[in-house]
Amino acid sequence: MVQLALTRRLRATPFTARLEAAGVKAYSVYNHMLLPAMFTSLEDDYRHLKSAVQLWDVSCERQVEIFGPDAARLVQLMTPRDLSRQVVGQCTYAPTVDARGHILNDPVTIKLAEDRFWVSVADSDIILYAKGLATGFGLAVTVQEPDIHPLAIQGPRADDLAAAVFGDAVRDIRFFRFGTVDFGGRQHLVSRSGYSVQGGFEVYLNGSDLGEPLWDALMEAGQSMDVRAGGPNLIERIEGGLLSFGSDMTSENTPYEAGLGKYCAPDRVACIGRAALLAEAERGPARIIRPIAIDGPPMSTPHEPLPLLAGNRAVGQVTSAVFSPDYGTNVALGMVASSHWDPGTTLEVRDGVQTRQALVRDKPFAG
Amino acid sequence: MVQLALTRRLRATPFTARLEAAGVKAYSVYNHMLLPAMFTSLEDDYRHLKSAVQLWDVSCERQVEIFGPDAARLVQLMTPRDLSRQVVGQCTYAPTVDARGHILNDPVTIKLAEDRFWVSVADSDIILYAKGLATGFGLAVTVQEPDIHPLAIQGPRADDLAAAVFGDAVRDIRFFRFGTVDFGGRQHLVSRSGYSVQGGFEVYLNGSDLGEPLWDALMEAGQSMDVRAGGPNLIERIEGGLLSFGSDMTSENTPYEAGLGKYCAPDRVACIGRAALLAEAERGPARIIRPIAIDGPPMSTPHEPLPLLAGNRAVGQVTSAVFSPDYGTNVALGMVASSHWDPGTTLEVRDGVQTRQALVRDKPFAG
Repeated sequence: MVQLALTRRLRATPFTARLEAAGVKAYSVYNHMLLPAMFTSLEDDYRHLKSAVQLWDVSCERQVEIFGPDAARLVQLMTPRDLSRQVVGQCTYAPTVDARGHILNDPVTIKLAEDRFWVSVADSDIILYAKGLATGFGLAVTVQEPDIHPLAIQGPRADDLAAAVFGDAVRDIRFFRFGTVDFGGRQHLVSRSGYSVQGGFEVYLNGSDLGEPLWDALMEAGQSMDVRAGGPNLIERIEGGLLSFGSDMTSENTPYEAGLGKYCAPDRVACIGRAALLAEAERGPARIIRPIAIDGPPMSTPHEPLPLLAGNRAVGQVTSAVFSPDYGTNVALGMVASSHWDPGTTLEVRDGVQTRQALVRDKPFAG
Repeated sequence: MVQLALTRRLRATPFTARLEAAGVKAYSVYNHMLLPAMFTSLEDDYRHLKSAVQLWDVSCERQVEIFGPDAARLVQLMTPRDLSRQVVGQCTYAPTVDARGHILNDPVTIKLAEDRFWVSVADSDIILYAKGLATGFGLAVTVQEPDIHPLAIQGPRADDLAAAVFGDAVRDIRFFRFGTVDFGGRQHLVSRSGYSVQGGFEVYLNGSDLGEPLWDALMEAGQSMDVRAGGPNLIERIEGGLLSFGSDMTSENTPYEAGLGKYCAPDRVACIGRAALLAEAERGPARIIRPIAIDGPPMSTPHEPLPLLAGNRAVGQVTSAVFSPDYGTNVALGMVASSHWDPGTTLEVRDGVQTRQALVRDKPFAG
């Protein structure tokens, strides 16, 4: 593997020193920030995630804080998801779109108050989009990045670990809802969410200075639970069908193509890109993301998309793929044309070395 | 050094396969794209850059194409630099600002026609800012990312190499102006510019499919000139005082703090953040970026800023630093408070291991 050249531009987090002490072997870069990608090995990290509990430094899920009288209006402008019934305390997966109805990000929007939101973003600078819209529309809002750094607790023992440090009340937090906990004399938001299908929480560290104390408290409380440092795991997230913006869909795609049509209500909301989205809702998308099983020897994740072929005709591309030890096959996600997206369709993938059979699936492998 | 986990999200470029064949050892990530950071060693790459000629894959300098009747208006809205006299064929360094007058990027704006611009961006998604502004202000413009990938030719023999492939007319291109050349049956823009002080060009590859043919043609023509694959070199760029957005200044800073006051004319242009910039122009910035010489054993680039101290008082921070073989000292850039920014001021830096003397300079070491 190639090395990563570290400079200040690839931002460290309040937990980076602890990751280095824990022996982080590989990083990704996400929102200009370091995201741990591997500790022991991809497979060992995966086995451990599925059996115990891990702390993930997901500080790179930056929060775009939007508050003021026009906050709700701006948040709704950016997404075709209907947020009119979102209550304070709720986290809502709400893809961001542009005027063409293309995806710019797939954040979780967190409603802190009627006039205050955090947009917890995937890998693109949505803060710049929000600032541009706020200035252009002349909205009465402040758009800023708060000193908030999410730390995820993921794995089957996540509830036990969170309860050991924050008290049993965290067990009552429902999926995609948040509560608050006290740590280090400060309140921190805790949501039941995370980028795995193992379950767990995301703690929105409130203030960088408490990063290492929080990390240490969780590591100490989790000793008996075999807690380890971890991070989003490529194998587990593909098995679970969790999308990665930038890998599985880009700003070349629409939410419908990303399989997010069920979250889109352009008929009801006054969002940007409404006309384009209404037209696509009417005619249906030309392609869609599907889970795919690919046979043959273990694959590593493609650096660039691999063409999906029907005979010699390109009918899509594989965007994420890796060998799954638990399913005994290569698990993948890919974008497949409407002519070939029916579950059960067999296609071919050429990865430069060989031609493999690829089976289009309806549902993810896990989750 | 730590590894970089490669996925599609960290975009490959039309030249990535050639970099891998050339033995790239380290990447950075810039605008979600791979940027080569090291081939042989930082010092060897540096020596070679200063004595011969290198091809740099700077595809990550993404172009934000803005065209249409309101294009000039949008481009001017985003920057306090007065673009009213920019002519077609000119490249202008024009920092992007937000409503607070803070820097969001420090791109080069290229005027292709009266109604068509490329904003060649540093490391942040300015395309999202431009889209937000265009939608919010209801401007008659199209904002998009074209299939353009810059390849830099840098070093003392850059003119000879460019002339060998594109003809002698490229020698006449003036600094920060562009011409066009024919290659592979297509026109490509070539500017005299680049992120080194060795001189050279940036070729705006027009169409990914011609990336490898262009690379190969330049490598073949440059054999007798000792051409090699390279990339922006940390030592050379700090010696030359070239700023890195995200390292030396961030969106916490203003253009005046970044030493870019000479490019700001908020009194003359109707840009975003005008009121804040006028106020700062009046009172002067509270701190400014300075070149700094730091004594003691060779330093490596700081992962996080290092505090600059006067006695025990923090009066700034070192944002980029590395040992320079040619100057026999650690060369650095840092942000220094107005109380201590006079050239010749001696400060201290603590890097965790030791305390070093730091000399504030007026001008960069080279260039």
